[in-house]
Amino acid sequence: MLLVISYDVNTTEPAGEKRLRKVARFCEKYGVRVQNSVFELEVDPAMEAAVHCGLEKLIDKRKDSVRFYRLGSNWNNKVESIGRKQMISFGKDLIL
Amino acid sequence: MLLVISYDVNTTEPAGEKRLRKVARFCEKYGVRVQNSVFELEVDPAMEAAVHCGLEKLIDKRKDSVRFYRLGSNWNNKVESIGRKQMISFGKDLIL
Repeated sequence: MLLVISYDVNTTEPAGEKRLRKVARFCEKYGVRVQNSVFELEVDPAMEAAVHCGLEKLIDKRKDSVRFYRLGSNWNNKVESIGRKQMISFGKDLIL
Repeated sequence: MLLVISYDVNTTEPAGEKRLRKVARFCEKYGVRVQNSVFELEVDPAMEAAVHCGLEKLIDKRKDSVRFYRLGSNWNNKVESIGRKQMISFGKDLIL
């Protein structure tokens, strides 16, 4: 299943910069960065739960925001991109 | 249908700052800002085409990136949020 994660981490304080780096590094372990604050992850339910739980621990819930969009398994025609492209490969699939 | 739009506008030059403002203002006309660079829009196919076309004209395709995620009509259980919440209302629906 394709899971899209977007985040806003409040970086007005140094601690925010640190959280931002941690969130980015965490997401990089599971998926592909498609924009500065957007990742696309190919996940199964167990991995989705792990990602959710991990991010919940990393952010400051009063200041930061993470959104999850479940695109399902047949997501090829649900994702589109214009402008500068980043090649993303999940197995044989390719979103351009 | 719920359409999620995320964008990265390259703001290393002043022209980029201008494009960023234009893109944000454009998206605000059609949907709800849920994060700094993420909007959620309730669209029909005609509106989706208009949004796509409008954004294509506003961005610099060599420098900026816009991604579209089509969540379909039954999107309530496909969207989740943790942390700082922004209330979003489409008709009777409410994503928290």
